[in-house]
Amino acid sequence: MTVYNAPIQETWFVLRHVVRIGELAHLPGYEALDEDSVKAILDSVGKFAANVLQPLNHSGDAEGCSRSMNGTVTTPAGFKPAYDQWVEAGWPTLEADPEYGGMGLPKVMATAVAEYVLSANQSFETYTGLTSAAVSAIDAAASQELKDAYLPRMVAGEWTGTMNLTEPHCGTDLGLLKTSAEPAGDGSYRITGNKIFITGGDQDLTANIIHLVLARLTDAPAGTKGISLFLVPKVLADGTPNALGCGAIEHKMGLRGSATCAMNYDGATGWLVGQENRGLAAMFVMMNSARLGVGLQGVAQAEAAFQNAKAYAMERRQGRAGRQPLDAGQAADLLIAHPDVRRMLLEAKAHIEGLRAICLWAATLVDIAANAQNAGAREQADDLLALLTPVIKAFASDKGFETTVNCQQIWGGHGYITENGMDQFVRDARLAMIYEGANGVQAMDLVGRKLPANDGRAFAILNARITAKIADCAADPALADIAAALGQAQADLLEAARWLKANPEDQGAGATAFLHLTGTVVMGYIWLRMAQAATQASGQSGFGADFLSTKVETARFYAQRMLSDTATLRAKVAAGSQSWMAIPIDQI
Amino acid sequence: MTVYNAPIQETWFVLRHVVRIGELAHLPGYEALDEDSVKAILDSVGKFAANVLQPLNHSGDAEGCSRSMNGTVTTPAGFKPAYDQWVEAGWPTLEADPEYGGMGLPKVMATAVAEYVLSANQSFETYTGLTSAAVSAIDAAASQELKDAYLPRMVAGEWTGTMNLTEPHCGTDLGLLKTSAEPAGDGSYRITGNKIFITGGDQDLTANIIHLVLARLTDAPAGTKGISLFLVPKVLADGTPNALGCGAIEHKMGLRGSATCAMNYDGATGWLVGQENRGLAAMFVMMNSARLGVGLQGVAQAEAAFQNAKAYAMERRQGRAGRQPLDAGQAADLLIAHPDVRRMLLEAKAHIEGLRAICLWAATLVDIAANAQNAGAREQADDLLALLTPVIKAFASDKGFETTVNCQQIWGGHGYITENGMDQFVRDARLAMIYEGANGVQAMDLVGRKLPANDGRAFAILNARITAKIADCAADPALADIAAALGQAQADLLEAARWLKANPEDQGAGATAFLHLTGTVVMGYIWLRMAQAATQASGQSGFGADFLSTKVETARFYAQRMLSDTATLRAKVAAGSQSWMAIPIDQI
Repeated sequence: MTVYNAPIQETWFVLRHVVRIGELAHLPGYEALDEDSVKAILDSVGKFAANVLQPLNHSGDAEGCSRSMNGTVTTPAGFKPAYDQWVEAGWPTLEADPEYGGMGLPKVMATAVAEYVLSANQSFETYTGLTSAAVSAIDAAASQELKDAYLPRMVAGEWTGTMNLTEPHCGTDLGLLKTSAEPAGDGSYRITGNKIFITGGDQDLTANIIHLVLARLTDAPAGTKGISLFLVPKVLADGTPNALGCGAIEHKMGLRGSATCAMNYDGATGWLVGQENRGLAAMFVMMNSARLGVGLQGVAQAEAAFQNAKAYAMERRQGRAGRQPLDAGQAADLLIAHPDVRRMLLEAKAHIEGLRAICLWAATLVDIAANAQNAGAREQADDLLALLTPVIKAFASDKGFETTVNCQQIWGGHGYITENGMDQFVRDARLAMIYEGANGVQAMDLVGRKLPANDGRAFAILNARITAKIADCAADPALADIAAALGQAQADLLEAARWLKANPEDQGAGATAFLHLTGTVVMGYIWLRMAQAATQASGQSGFGADFLSTKVETARFYAQRMLSDTATLRAKVAAGSQSWMAIPIDQI
Repeated sequence: MTVYNAPIQETWFVLRHVVRIGELAHLPGYEALDEDSVKAILDSVGKFAANVLQPLNHSGDAEGCSRSMNGTVTTPAGFKPAYDQWVEAGWPTLEADPEYGGMGLPKVMATAVAEYVLSANQSFETYTGLTSAAVSAIDAAASQELKDAYLPRMVAGEWTGTMNLTEPHCGTDLGLLKTSAEPAGDGSYRITGNKIFITGGDQDLTANIIHLVLARLTDAPAGTKGISLFLVPKVLADGTPNALGCGAIEHKMGLRGSATCAMNYDGATGWLVGQENRGLAAMFVMMNSARLGVGLQGVAQAEAAFQNAKAYAMERRQGRAGRQPLDAGQAADLLIAHPDVRRMLLEAKAHIEGLRAICLWAATLVDIAANAQNAGAREQADDLLALLTPVIKAFASDKGFETTVNCQQIWGGHGYITENGMDQFVRDARLAMIYEGANGVQAMDLVGRKLPANDGRAFAILNARITAKIADCAADPALADIAAALGQAQADLLEAARWLKANPEDQGAGATAFLHLTGTVVMGYIWLRMAQAATQASGQSGFGADFLSTKVETARFYAQRMLSDTATLRAKVAAGSQSWMAIPIDQI
C-alpha cells in the first residue's frame, strides 16, 4: 500500500520565508496566521488527509462510483463517513466569507491544505474543491437573496456545488452551447439541455447539490456573448426534487472515486446569477479558481508519487551504484544510491517544491488582488495572476504528470501493478492536463490574451520582478551562478516574446512552447527566491542547516539541469510554422 | 470505437527507399522481397491485424485474463480463435529457419508486420512475439536434440515460448536470482524457484508452453557468472504435466489481455540450454531481440493513437483557428485547423515515421550482422546494432509514450473516457518504458558498455555514417538546411560523448540525457535519409508528389523543432552531478 505524510515543513518554509505571510498581515485573515495557528491548521488537515482520506484512495479507485436505475449516484465505500467528518471538523468553511459562516482565512491557507487533500485522495477533493469554487462564483456575482439562500449551507459543507459548462458537442468552444433558459414569469427560469462531464453532478454525500449551469436565454445573441449563468438546485426550497437528473456516469482512466455525470435538465427551475448574457464572466470567477486548483493537482499527485518512489528507492536493493558502493556488506545497493535514480528523485523534488511555491505565491496574489489597500498593489497582483493562471494550470499539470510517471518508473515493473498504487497516481494525474481548459487552450490564452493585454503590462511586471531578484542575488557567492542561469533563461523568454509579437501568425504554433518557456523561467525565479530565503533564514528559523543548504543545492540543480531547457523552447517558438502548416491535411 | 489501418505505404517507402531492401538481395530471404511479395505480406498481415486483432483490443482490455483455482489461465474472449487463425495463416513461421518449418524471411520483414500486430492488439502480440524471441534463443544456443524436439512446433505456433528472468527480489540485478537447478542424473535438471512477471506463463491458446528459465546450479559461482539457462516445458514429452504452475496473475495498469504470471517451479524437469553458467549470454539473444521489439511497441502504440487522434481532429469542430477560418460556413473549425493541434499531430507523425524507419533499419542490421558475406560488413552491423539496441528500446518507448499521451490530449475530455479507447493506448504504451530492462538501465548500458566498447568503435561508425550523409546532402538546396541542423546536433552529441569520457564519475547522472541526445541525433539522421530518398524517388516510384514532398517537409519540421533539443540535452549531460549527489539522502 502507498504511504503519505503531509509535507508540513515544506509548506511552512514557503509560507514563512518565500511568500512571507508575515509581511501580508495587513490583509484580511493574514493577521491570524502566526506560526502556531498555521502549523495547527496544516497539522490537523494533514493528519485528516493522511489518516482518513488516503486510506480510501486506492479502494475508491478500485470500486469507483455507481449509478442506480433511478439516477442516483453512490460514491465509493467510506467517502460518505469521511465527508461527514470533513464537515464536522469545519474544513469546508476555511476560506469562506465569515458573513456566511466561513472562517475567513486567506486563499493561501486554503491552497496550502488543499494540496494535502489532493495528495491523499484527489477524487474526494473534487467534491469539496468545486464547492469552494462555486461559493466564490456565487459570492462574486449572485444577488443577495441567492447568497443568503444558498451560501450558508454550501459554506458549511451541508450542500455541494458543481459547474456545468460542457455539452456533448462543445467543451472548449462554449459559444456553441445549446442548453436553453426560459423565464418562468416568477423571476425563475426553466433550464433545458444536456451537460456532460459534470463532476459531482450527483452523489450521496449531501442532501442537496447546487448546480451552476451555463445556458442561453431564448432571445440571446449567438456565441459566447449570449450565455447566462444559472443556479439550479437539485432539491428546491420546498423540498421537491427539481426537474434534473444524472443520466449516466462515465468510466474513466482515473479519478474513479469522482462521479463524472451526464446531466439532463428538463425544464429545471433555476435563478439567474449576475447579469443576462454575462454568464461566462461570472463562470470565469469559478473557472480561474478551478484552474489554479488544477495546477495544484499536478503538484499534489507528484508529491504523493514522489513520497512512494522515495520510500521504494530507500528499501529496494538492486545492482551496484558505482565504484564506491554505499553498502559493501549487502549484495546490492539501494536504488537511491544509483545516480540515474537519484536524478529522477531530484527532478521530482525540484519540480514539486518549485511548483508548490508558485501555487502558494499565486494564492497570495489572489488575496492581494482582492484585499490590498493600495490600488496599485491590487492591480499588479491582478495582472500577475491573470498571466500566471494559464501557466500554472498547464505547466504544473504537465510537469506534475511527467514527475508522476518518473516516480512510477522508479518502481520498475512493480510500478505497473495496480495493487502497488503508483499506477493510480499516473492515471489520476493525467486528467489535470485536460480539464478546466486543455493545456493547449491555456497556451492560446497565454499568448493570445494574457501576454498582449494592456500592452504587455503583466509580462513587464513579471520580468521586472525577475530582473530585480537576479540583481539582488548576483553578488552573493552562494547564489550568483543560479542568478546568472536565470538571467540567461529570462533572456530566452524575452526574445521569444518579442518574436511572437513580431510574428502573430505563428502564435498558435509556438503557444505551448512559449507557455513551457514561461513556466520554466518562473520556476527558476521561485527557486532563486527559495535559495535566497534559505541563505537568509539560517539561525533561529527552526529549519535545520541541512534543510536550508539542500534548498540552495536544489535551486542549483534546477538551474543547471532545467533552466537550459529555455534555449530549445525559444528555438521551437522561433521556428515558426509556415512550412509545416502548408503540409496538405490528407498527408498528415 | 477506435480505428486502425496498417500504414502499408509508409512501410513500403522505408523498405524500398530508405533501408533499400533491393540492395540487400544477396542476403538470405531478401531475394524474395520484390515489390509484389512484400506488399502481399504487408497487406495480408495488415488486414489480419485490422480485421481480426484490433476488434479484440478494447474488449480484451475490459475483460482481462483470469486464473482458475487450479492455476490455469484464460485469455480474453476471442483470443483463442484469433490465435488459431494466426497459426492457420502461417504467420508464426515468418522469420523462422526453414529447417524447422519457417518461411525464412528476414528480420526486416518480421519487424514490418510485427508493428501492425502491435498497433492492433499489443496484448495479443505478447504471446506471439515472445515465442519468436524464444525460438531465436533456442536456435542460437540449444543442443540439436532440443532444437529438433521443440523448434518445429514452436515455429508452427503450436506451442508458445516464455522468458523467465525476474524474481520477487530481483529484476534488473539478475545476479541476485535464487531459482535453483539440480542435475537429475539423466541429463535433465530439477528446477525449483519462484519467478514473477512472466508474460504468457500460462494461457489457453496452446497445448504446451516452453519456458526458458534462468536458474543457478548448486555449485555455481555467485552473481551473474553463475546463471544457467534451462528449457522447461509445461507438458513433458510423455504428456505428463511438469512440476510447475502459475500461482497468480497480476492486475496491471494496462496490457490486460496479456497474462502476467507468477510462476512456481517445484522441481520441474528442464534441460540446459547452452553451457553451464553461461545462461545470461544465451538469454541475451532473446533479450536483445525483445528489446528491439519493445522499441517497436512504442512506435506501434503511437501509430494507433495517432490514427485515432487524426480521425477525431478531422471530425470535431471547436473554436476558430485563426483569422482565415477554413470553414466559414460552419460554426467552428475542425480541430486539425488549429495550429497547436496541427503541431501535436506533426510531432506525432515525425516521431512515428522516424522511429519506424529506425526500427526497420535496425532489423536490416540484424540480418546483415547474421548473414552478410563480408566479415567487415557483419562487424559494422553488429557494432551498430549493439549501440542502437538500448537507444531504440528506451528512446522509442519514451517518445512512443509521449506521443500517445499527446494524441490522447487531442481528444480533450473524451480522451479520458475508457470507452473511447485513447486511455488504453496510453496505459498499454506505458509498460514499454519499464520491461525488458527499464529505460534508465538502457541508458546505463549505453554509456557504461556500448559507448566505450572497442574504444568507441560503434559510436565512431555511427558518426561516420551521419557525417557522410550530411556531406552527401549539404549541396542539395532542398536538404541543405536539414543537413546543417543535423550537423549542429551531431556536434552536441560528440561534445557530450567527449565530456562523459573525461568525467566517468558523472556517467550515471548523464546517462538518460545522453541516451535521448543519441536518439534525437539518430532521428535527425534517419529523417535526412528519408528526405533525401523522397527527393530522389520522384517520378516512377509509385509514391505521389504530395507524399514525397511531405516527407521532406516533415524532415524539416523535425530538424527545426526537435533537433534543437540536443543543446539542452548536452547541457544536462555536462552539468555533472557532484553538487546534487552530495545532498544528504534524508533531505531528498
